[in-house]
Amino acid sequence: MSLSMYEASIPVLARMLGNLSNILKKAEANAQARGIDPKVFIDSRLAPDMYPLARQVQVVSDMAKGCAARLAGVDVPSWADTESTFEELQARIAKTQAFLKGIDAAQLDGSEDRTVVLKMRSGDLSFRGRDYLLGFALPNFYFHLTAAYAILRHNGVDVGKMDFLGGV
Amino acid sequence: MSLSMYEASIPVLARMLGNLSNILKKAEANAQARGIDPKVFIDSRLAPDMYPLARQVQVVSDMAKGCAARLAGVDVPSWADTESTFEELQARIAKTQAFLKGIDAAQLDGSEDRTVVLKMRSGDLSFRGRDYLLGFALPNFYFHLTAAYAILRHNGVDVGKMDFLGGV
Repeated sequence: MSLSMYEASIPVLARMLGNLSNILKKAEANAQARGIDPKVFIDSRLAPDMYPLARQVQVVSDMAKGCAARLAGVDVPSWADTESTFEELQARIAKTQAFLKGIDAAQLDGSEDRTVVLKMRSGDLSFRGRDYLLGFALPNFYFHLTAAYAILRHNGVDVGKMDFLGGV
Repeated sequence: MSLSMYEASIPVLARMLGNLSNILKKAEANAQARGIDPKVFIDSRLAPDMYPLARQVQVVSDMAKGCAARLAGVDVPSWADTESTFEELQARIAKTQAFLKGIDAAQLDGSEDRTVVLKMRSGDLSFRGRDYLLGFALPNFYFHLTAAYAILRHNGVDVGKMDFLGGV
């Protein structure tokens, strides 16, 4: 055994949220430079039946706080999904990062075998902690993070892979 | 310590590659049903300066075999990136999965602290194994996997989040 549940989750989520924040800053500057109403980016989608940028960012936040809370065995904070400006999305990311910061590494000890239950429309879904992290929380987190990035690239925002990775 | 480097990498990569294979099968069937030349999907991009579908799949494969090989301390297999049909992309995925299957869990023992060196155009990049996995290989893998999926959704292919996750 070589990785702690903590290091495989919280610092990864926190770092990628920081990258998302920087990407959104570049998107806001790009809208300003091109004389585009920021709402155009905020409401943009890759397909009519995919989420727009604002919702993608909210779900990234939900996946991060849900993962951290469930693995730590604390209540998942419930936040209204009302963000509709870059400023509000930045605040949502900052709030998510503050929540992650409040989780102590020791709270995740043993979470690999803790039972995690997700309330879905279709009923309860039960996972072992390790399967929840590796097979649900991280894939979902990366999915919505990449979708947010791709919406902006699709709209001509000058971000690149290094912005996504946050440097290597 | 609660997760092995093996379980945080190989089975995750293998499972997501299987999901990608299923998504590409649905895309091929969708092209056929709509009377669209499959090349339209294969060459489709989300932005002029992003990779088309075929290249996204090749990079997903590269990230998976590179991650597995480097953590196991074996040579990364070098494959020509010549796939230009759904059949060839499926073969590339199958070849990648076969390579992953050939890696034994014991080969990754201790890889969390093994030094991984990436040859980049800008010079050598050196990581500890754990940072390579969590901060480079997995984010890149998910990035290109999601990009492939998003290209197809953008083109109206009827895949959904459950196809991406492979069921939960």
